[in-house]
Amino acid sequence: MRRNFIFFLAVIFWSVSVFSQTITSPNNNLSMHFQLVDSVPYYSLDYKGTPVIKASRLGLELEKLPSLMNGFEIKDETQTTKDETWNPVLGEVKTIRNHYNELGVELYQPSTQRTIRIRFRVFDDGLGFRYEFPEQPNLNYFVIKDEESEFALNGDHKAWWIPGDYDTEEYEYTISNLSEVPKLFDHSYDQNASQTIVPMALQTPLMLESKQGLFINIHEAALIDYAGMNLDLNPKTFVLKTHLTPDAQGMKGYIQTPMRSPWRTIVVSDRAEDILASKLILNLNEPTKYAITDWIKPVKYVGVWWEMIMGKSTWSYTNSNNIHLGVTDYSKLKPNGTHGANNQHVKDYIDFAAKNGFDAVLVEGWDEGWEDWFGHSKEYVFDFVTPYPDFDIKMLNDYAHSKGVKLIMHNETSSSAINYERHFDTAYKLMNHFGYDAVKTGYVGNIIPRGEHHYSQWMIEHYQRVVDQAAKHKVMVDSHESVHPTGLSRTYPNWIAAEAARGTEYDAFGGNNPNHTLVLPFTRLMGGPMDYTPGIFQTKLDYYFPGDKRFVKTTLVKQLALYVTMYSPLQMAADLIENYERFPDAFQFIKDVAVDWDDTKILKAYPGEYILEARKAKGKDEWFVGGITDEHARTMTIDFSFLDPSKKWIATIYEDGKDADYIKNPQSYHIYQKKITSKTKLNQRLAPSGGVAISIKLAE
Amino acid sequence: MRRNFIFFLAVIFWSVSVFSQTITSPNNNLSMHFQLVDSVPYYSLDYKGTPVIKASRLGLELEKLPSLMNGFEIKDETQTTKDETWNPVLGEVKTIRNHYNELGVELYQPSTQRTIRIRFRVFDDGLGFRYEFPEQPNLNYFVIKDEESEFALNGDHKAWWIPGDYDTEEYEYTISNLSEVPKLFDHSYDQNASQTIVPMALQTPLMLESKQGLFINIHEAALIDYAGMNLDLNPKTFVLKTHLTPDAQGMKGYIQTPMRSPWRTIVVSDRAEDILASKLILNLNEPTKYAITDWIKPVKYVGVWWEMIMGKSTWSYTNSNNIHLGVTDYSKLKPNGTHGANNQHVKDYIDFAAKNGFDAVLVEGWDEGWEDWFGHSKEYVFDFVTPYPDFDIKMLNDYAHSKGVKLIMHNETSSSAINYERHFDTAYKLMNHFGYDAVKTGYVGNIIPRGEHHYSQWMIEHYQRVVDQAAKHKVMVDSHESVHPTGLSRTYPNWIAAEAARGTEYDAFGGNNPNHTLVLPFTRLMGGPMDYTPGIFQTKLDYYFPGDKRFVKTTLVKQLALYVTMYSPLQMAADLIENYERFPDAFQFIKDVAVDWDDTKILKAYPGEYILEARKAKGKDEWFVGGITDEHARTMTIDFSFLDPSKKWIATIYEDGKDADYIKNPQSYHIYQKKITSKTKLNQRLAPSGGVAISIKLAE
Repeated sequence: MRRNFIFFLAVIFWSVSVFSQTITSPNNNLSMHFQLVDSVPYYSLDYKGTPVIKASRLGLELEKLPSLMNGFEIKDETQTTKDETWNPVLGEVKTIRNHYNELGVELYQPSTQRTIRIRFRVFDDGLGFRYEFPEQPNLNYFVIKDEESEFALNGDHKAWWIPGDYDTEEYEYTISNLSEVPKLFDHSYDQNASQTIVPMALQTPLMLESKQGLFINIHEAALIDYAGMNLDLNPKTFVLKTHLTPDAQGMKGYIQTPMRSPWRTIVVSDRAEDILASKLILNLNEPTKYAITDWIKPVKYVGVWWEMIMGKSTWSYTNSNNIHLGVTDYSKLKPNGTHGANNQHVKDYIDFAAKNGFDAVLVEGWDEGWEDWFGHSKEYVFDFVTPYPDFDIKMLNDYAHSKGVKLIMHNETSSSAINYERHFDTAYKLMNHFGYDAVKTGYVGNIIPRGEHHYSQWMIEHYQRVVDQAAKHKVMVDSHESVHPTGLSRTYPNWIAAEAARGTEYDAFGGNNPNHTLVLPFTRLMGGPMDYTPGIFQTKLDYYFPGDKRFVKTTLVKQLALYVTMYSPLQMAADLIENYERFPDAFQFIKDVAVDWDDTKILKAYPGEYILEARKAKGKDEWFVGGITDEHARTMTIDFSFLDPSKKWIATIYEDGKDADYIKNPQSYHIYQKKITSKTKLNQRLAPSGGVAISIKLAE
Repeated sequence: MRRNFIFFLAVIFWSVSVFSQTITSPNNNLSMHFQLVDSVPYYSLDYKGTPVIKASRLGLELEKLPSLMNGFEIKDETQTTKDETWNPVLGEVKTIRNHYNELGVELYQPSTQRTIRIRFRVFDDGLGFRYEFPEQPNLNYFVIKDEESEFALNGDHKAWWIPGDYDTEEYEYTISNLSEVPKLFDHSYDQNASQTIVPMALQTPLMLESKQGLFINIHEAALIDYAGMNLDLNPKTFVLKTHLTPDAQGMKGYIQTPMRSPWRTIVVSDRAEDILASKLILNLNEPTKYAITDWIKPVKYVGVWWEMIMGKSTWSYTNSNNIHLGVTDYSKLKPNGTHGANNQHVKDYIDFAAKNGFDAVLVEGWDEGWEDWFGHSKEYVFDFVTPYPDFDIKMLNDYAHSKGVKLIMHNETSSSAINYERHFDTAYKLMNHFGYDAVKTGYVGNIIPRGEHHYSQWMIEHYQRVVDQAAKHKVMVDSHESVHPTGLSRTYPNWIAAEAARGTEYDAFGGNNPNHTLVLPFTRLMGGPMDYTPGIFQTKLDYYFPGDKRFVKTTLVKQLALYVTMYSPLQMAADLIENYERFPDAFQFIKDVAVDWDDTKILKAYPGEYILEARKAKGKDEWFVGGITDEHARTMTIDFSFLDPSKKWIATIYEDGKDADYIKNPQSYHIYQKKITSKTKLNQRLAPSGGVAISIKLAE
């Protein structure tokens, strides 16, 4: 269904020339209006007749070239409709419907003889638009000075936001009206290993709620070969504007045509649950080009990690502070005796993983260089192939494989991305040689090439190079401290998960607020799965270090529920073996819970307050329910109508104990079984920062 | 011979604490005086009692750390003497004497508990000093904000200088007193493909002459893992100060101890000829670690090059301006018909090389990507392995080898150094596969990683990585647009030559002054051999392009003499085949002249005016004499006393014709033979910008 129009000038009145065109969503709830006013392109978006985005300018400023902001004529216009379904390799649902109406507008700038295209896709759950730069005589290469896409909001919305930054998303969320951002901005961040705050900018996914109860989520999709986006906020007009991450010289992107920008996405609904259910961002990504994907599998794992994060053991093998890789002879250094990744300890984890049905064991701190890996802008910081003397890579992999378990490789780059690119092929060959099928990458610290940022174009391309190179070796990638995901797991399904937000590790650093995991699904997770690493049973760290004030601000049961509410096909049980052995009945839920799904139901959700979801395990008649709450205790009615009414079910319910409280009594829980049907309704109490986790199987 | 002293405080008077120590050159002509005055280190240098360098401060400013400028105590002092000889793999002489007295001063900074060492070596022909940073608890990592080494000159010397720049040395030399630099500075440069002028700074090697006729040359030796140096000039006090090249963030160097700076070198003599004869810079470099060097051989070559430089043919195969490597299908593009590197043309060059005894043929423009290689900051600009459709890499190499000739690989990086590092191993494997043994690299344009400079630390390390990687593949490197050489060909003899100055190509661009090649040996060539690409017989380009004003500002004979005066073990005969065929008698000199030498005699030289040298071919009883002059005709007396007096010799003398003139009659020459002995003296006239070239063999 394709229509072509050739326009001269649509309308002329009062010396203002206006071309305009409207497309609606398949269900007609959404209406996108495109206008060319005095040769300047604008768009706006309505939801059920209510303005979501008011007339907002589109365009780009270029370096040393005339801008792509104005002086346009309409050259061509195309409308199409698409309605298809596709199956993600791994996902929250088995089948995704991709249904939209599309408007493509070709804009010609007579003064420069250049043509660009702006493409809009209106789905039932939102809008995506992007710029396209066709190859043409007068537009082969250009440098982006700034993308100036606006999102003119229709009021002083409530926002769940983190401050603009070029290097990290690892902040707590601030909840405020947009007009309050100026006074709160400087309180919205703490220190990070690498950070470049962008004043009065907000990061995406940005979650908003209008006074009329309209939920709006703004982000980007298919971020490829282009700088990552922040949003400049005008706290008086509530206009947001794209703010691309600059490179070392302040440039925002080097473009060779043909090229297209990422999609700018606006997910909209009057139900918060619909935001979580939206597949708009995935739909705006390209289908995967991988012919074979059977090597991409969900992973539930344990690992040598939390003990280092909280300070019980070390990544480093010695206490030296000056390592020259390939020169320093570790056999002549004194071991510090605290090295976590030692043979016996790793074998214990392998045994534990095998016994409890985990797929894999992550081991951090296995390779030479951890003594001085951080804070020195050291370019040759790891070689990614040389184990410490007490890590027998062959023996441990052989041992793991003999037990049906795989090791997960850890490649911390220390943000020396340039060094990682020199070594990654060798590193992946080593993984192939020893039978690793997944790598956790890390980008802690400031980027090398120096002056680049975690979200500048060069690094976006770097993350892509890593995923491409890993794919050649059939290796799955779990990237930490990388850019906000933008749905690329559709196209590159081996990019199985990412961190790219404040994860569980912060519970051992500065702490995560009780509402943190209630916001993340509405923000960070809109772009893709997060390796949040839940499962901490021993939430209070004074258990290890008497007097230590640090603690994970949830109940134990809430940690269980996170396996359902924090979608990821790669999920860690992050706590120590000894803690799982102390609570074997609660641990059963982690053993049972799926990580890849046929279906997902967002039962109840409000950002930062509560989330209740049910998910059906991939290929099995098993459901798992997870409910979590913020610092407020809460009773939720769980309606099991999602269950097949023709079948009988038995639910194992993991609930907060009556006296449970994330501060006073986090380990109080109660487990019981109950027969249920699709008609069952359960009034379930959740403790302050508590939760509920339910596994549901067919009754025999 | 090693003496150790422990000092408290050497002398205390008038509340100024002074430690001082003097060492002299082996012949006592030079005297270096080190002082610690009020805890600040200074050095000075005298030549035969005349001050060369007055008391000059030493030290470094660090980023975010206390400086290494003051607050020092003497901790230890060491004096040694060395007298040894060594044989360069390729060189101007067969054996080099390395003879110096050394002072090592260990400086302790009590406030920071850090120790550094300054090492001085005094040779008969000059001084070298460097900083050493031993590994120690309080000095493992630091960032250099600036090195502040001074060279306080003793007067308003005459200087042969090019302006400070972070990216290019491709300038004409300006000759002026130092006090005149301010008024001349902005006239001292023209445009370059990549340039970052450093106001009121001068580049090294910097050639100076005092009013008393003392010749002084300042440069650096063994530039490894450290930013390249300019010299800030104070035009009133005549104090020069090191000015390191910054990276994208303005930092001058990331240092991990143990580490040492390059040597700062001062070559001094009252004879200009001694400056050219000095081996001080080579001596300050480390001996090669290559166990086997027989794959490193001198190379005389022709090539497909000058025709593109002057505009007769093109590097590119098509006139497209938008190439996506690996995507663009060249078979579907229209060839432009001007591509130089085509099979037939290269075969003609191979035939010509074989017939005339050349070792190799350089071919530029053989690989895909030349259509849009420059000016777009295009990162993936070449893959270095994919030939154009009309360049049959296997056939041409087979053909060349069948005739005893090798092809020289050309890897223009377009300064996308990061891309070259991704591909160089594959590129060198391709060279090995097809039998290339040398590569010409190029760095035209601004560096990627963006913000780095041609002389910033990262790029210095890059050039080193290239040479190291090439060595693994037994490939010789001829680097163009790289940093000023600093004698590293001693340590890495496969770094056979470099351009790194304004070469013959500029005769087709902006033009080189008649005195240009009279200055280069005193400046650029102090650091190592230059691939100047002499041998242009058809100096006037209106021969090809009627009305074209461009011309090479020398006589034909001066072009011959350059093969002797511009030392390089890699020498091109740069002109077109047709021009050598027009002047076969003159071309005979190029065919005969050696490129590797047993001995060199600097007979007469004054920077920018005249040079007369004699060199003995390696392993042969053959001498070659080259004499050149600036725009002034000149008569030189050539004293053949360098010849073995027990033998009789026959000289073939290539002289400017009586009516020769670089403007009016450049191709006028006269060739004759003459029997000579060691007692012969020849009064030889050189035309304006003319020369004389003499080949001398044993009389049968």
